[in-house]
Amino acid sequence: MEVITTGCIVAPRGFQAGTTYCGIKITKDSLDLGIIFSEYPATGAALFTTNQIYAAPVRISKKIIKKGRVRAFVMNSGNANACTGEQGYKDAAEMVRIAARCLKISEDELLVASTGIIGRLLPMDKIAAGIQTAANSLGSTQEHGNAMARAIMTTDTKQKAVAVRLKINKKNVTIGGITKGAGMIAPNLATTLCFLTTDVSMPAMLLNECLRNSAESSFNRITIDGHMSTNDTIAIIANGASGVTITEKNSDLLIFQQGLDYVTSTLAKAIVMDGEGATKFVQIDVISARSRNEAARIARSIADSPLVKTALNGEDPNWGRIVSAAGYAGVELDESKVTLFINNILIFAKGMPTQCDLNALSRSMKDRNITIRLELGLGNYNDTVWTCDLSHEYVTINAEYHT
Amino acid sequence: MEVITTGCIVAPRGFQAGTTYCGIKITKDSLDLGIIFSEYPATGAALFTTNQIYAAPVRISKKIIKKGRVRAFVMNSGNANACTGEQGYKDAAEMVRIAARCLKISEDELLVASTGIIGRLLPMDKIAAGIQTAANSLGSTQEHGNAMARAIMTTDTKQKAVAVRLKINKKNVTIGGITKGAGMIAPNLATTLCFLTTDVSMPAMLLNECLRNSAESSFNRITIDGHMSTNDTIAIIANGASGVTITEKNSDLLIFQQGLDYVTSTLAKAIVMDGEGATKFVQIDVISARSRNEAARIARSIADSPLVKTALNGEDPNWGRIVSAAGYAGVELDESKVTLFINNILIFAKGMPTQCDLNALSRSMKDRNITIRLELGLGNYNDTVWTCDLSHEYVTINAEYHT
Repeated sequence: MEVITTGCIVAPRGFQAGTTYCGIKITKDSLDLGIIFSEYPATGAALFTTNQIYAAPVRISKKIIKKGRVRAFVMNSGNANACTGEQGYKDAAEMVRIAARCLKISEDELLVASTGIIGRLLPMDKIAAGIQTAANSLGSTQEHGNAMARAIMTTDTKQKAVAVRLKINKKNVTIGGITKGAGMIAPNLATTLCFLTTDVSMPAMLLNECLRNSAESSFNRITIDGHMSTNDTIAIIANGASGVTITEKNSDLLIFQQGLDYVTSTLAKAIVMDGEGATKFVQIDVISARSRNEAARIARSIADSPLVKTALNGEDPNWGRIVSAAGYAGVELDESKVTLFINNILIFAKGMPTQCDLNALSRSMKDRNITIRLELGLGNYNDTVWTCDLSHEYVTINAEYHT
Repeated sequence: MEVITTGCIVAPRGFQAGTTYCGIKITKDSLDLGIIFSEYPATGAALFTTNQIYAAPVRISKKIIKKGRVRAFVMNSGNANACTGEQGYKDAAEMVRIAARCLKISEDELLVASTGIIGRLLPMDKIAAGIQTAANSLGSTQEHGNAMARAIMTTDTKQKAVAVRLKINKKNVTIGGITKGAGMIAPNLATTLCFLTTDVSMPAMLLNECLRNSAESSFNRITIDGHMSTNDTIAIIANGASGVTITEKNSDLLIFQQGLDYVTSTLAKAIVMDGEGATKFVQIDVISARSRNEAARIARSIADSPLVKTALNGEDPNWGRIVSAAGYAGVELDESKVTLFINNILIFAKGMPTQCDLNALSRSMKDRNITIRLELGLGNYNDTVWTCDLSHEYVTINAEYHT
C-alpha cells in the first residue's frame, strides 16, 4: 500500500476538483466553494449526522443518495445552511440545480454539503457565480486536489487529506479523501465533512457497507467537544476508472476495505490532532466491559469530561477524574475490579492506588500522545476513542468566534 | 419568612459547629475539618451521588442513614477519600468512631463526608487530632457557623450559607444550610456537599421526602461541567428544639417544605454563581416537551455543551449552537416547531431565524444573568436547568489543580 499525501482527492483516476473564493467567508481569498467531479458515471454512498436538527443540504443529500448514483459533490464553507427553514431547503436544492447544469449531469447524481455558521441564509448570488467559476476551473493536478482540501476548512489550521494506492488483481486502485474539523466533533455515525473518491467499481449497496465499516473504526471513534454537528456528512464516489470491479465479499474487497480504513482513520485522527486548541492526542481504551456499547459509553464519558480534558492539558496525572468519569457513564461498575493505566504506567489496580512513580508519569504526559487504558474486569468487550485536551486556546477560539 | 445570612448552620436551636485546620489542605490555616452537632437526639435524611464510583464516606453514611437517626456530621475537605479501597473504608469508619467518642454519641448517629482530591489515603493521625480539636471547639455563635461554611470549601471562592426562620403554629422554626462547589457539578440526585439543620421535629421518612423534593428543584437543576462527583452528599438533621413537630402532610409541612426549598435553591444557585471560572449565571428553560424527562435531557445537553458555554462566555448570541445541542440530546424533534428566546428576545421562530436586533441581543448578554428559553412545540412538559459559562479561568483552575 502506497500512501499519497498531495492532491489526494483527485489521485484516483477520472476525478477532477474545482474551487473558488466566492465571498461567503469573511477572510478574503480564503477558498469557500468547491466541486469534486467524476469524469465517468459512478456509484456513491453517504452517511449523515444523527442530530435531530440537521441542515438543508443534509436533507437534500439524504434523498439523492437513495438511488446510489453519484458523480459529483458540491460544497461551501463559511455558512452551514442549517436552521434556515424552507428557504434554506430551496437554496440547497438550487445549489444542486446550478451545479448539475454547469457539470452537465443529472440533478440526482450530485450531493451537496455546507459547513460554517448556523442560522444564516446562503448568499445565493455569490454561490451561483461561485459554482460556475469552480466548474470552469475543474482539473486533476495536485494543486486542484490540494485547493479542494483547503476549500472545506473552517477553523481548521491544517488541510487534512490522504490517499492510498493498492494493488488489486495486479491493477492499481486508488482511494483519496479530504476532511475538515475542528470543533463540533462528537462520535455518532458520520462526523464532520469527509469526501472520498475511488477508481474502483462497486455496487452502491456494497460501497455503503464498506463506508459504514470504515466510519465505525474511524470517525465514530473521535470526539473533541461532544457537540454533534447539524451538517456531518461522509460520502464516497466510486467511478470504476481503474478497471477493477468488486461485486462481492471476497479478498479483493478485503484489500479495498483495509485501504479505505487507512484513509478514514488517518483523516479522523488528523481531525483530533487539529482539534480546536488541542495540544494532546489521547487514545482511550476501555477493556473488559460487559458489551461494546458499555465500553463505548465509558470511553466517551471520559473523553468528554472537561475535568479530564483540562487535566490532560495541564499534563497532570489526575486519574481520579478519569475513574469518576467512568463511574457516571450509566454503566454498573465494580470499583474493586477497576484498573487504570496512563501511558502504560499502572496507577490504579483493582480499586487501589498503586505506588507508581508519579514524577515519571508526569514527565511522560509532556509527550503529545497520551494513552489511557481502563480495565473494568467485567466481560470481554473493548472500545477505543480518540480525543484531545481542553485548552485556553479552545476557549479563545469558541468565545471569540462571533456571529 | 426571614432570611438569615450569617452563622446559618447553627441558626436553628440546639446546634453547634466546631472546626479546625488539621493539615490536610496544603494552604496553612485554611480550615479543613468540621463537626456539626445537635445537642438533642434527632432524625436525619440524606441523598448521595449516583456515580458508580463512590467514596468510602458515602459507603459508610449510606449504611448509617438507614436507621434515620442522626445527631452529627463529621467532614473533612482537601481529600475525598475516594478510590482508596478497603483502607479508605476503614479510615472513614475510624472517622465515625473517633467523632462518636469525642461527641459521646452512638456511632450510628453520625454521618461522615469528605471532599477534595481523589485517590489519596487520608492522613489519619492528623484527622484523629483534628476531630478532637473540632469537638473541643464546638459552639453556637455566628462565628462557629461561618467557620463551618468555610471548612467545607475546596476551589470555592466564597462561602455558601443561608438560613430561614418560619412561623409554624406561632412558633419559630429555623432551617440552616451550607454547601460547597465549585467543579465536578452535574445534576443527578444529590450534587456536591450540602449540610442542613432544622429545629423542627419530623419522622425520618417524612424528612427524607422533603429533602428529596427540595433537591429535585435545586441541586438536581444545576450543572457546571457535567462531571458527577464521587462524594456528593446532601444531608439534614431535624432535632425538634423549636417545639414544633410535623408528622403528616398538612399545611405545616407545606410551610416547612417552602422554607427548605428556599434554602436549597439559594445554595444550589450560589454553587453555579461560584462555578469554577464562571462569569455568567444562565437559566435554561425547555418548554412544551413530550415529557419532563425529555425536557430535562435537552436542557442538560444545552447546558453541558462546551460550544454553548464558550459562546456565553464570549457574550455572543450564537444560537445555532443552542439549537444543535438540543438536536443531539437523543430526543425526537420537529425543527419547524422549535422556537428560541435569548434574554426574552425571539431569535428563532418555528424553524426560521427572526429579524431580531442582534446588536440589542449582544448588548443584553453583557449582563451577568442570561436566560435561554427553548420551546419545542411537542407537548406540555417543561424543565429548567441553571448553569454557568466556560471561561479561560475554568481551564486555568482545572489544568493547574495539580495532583
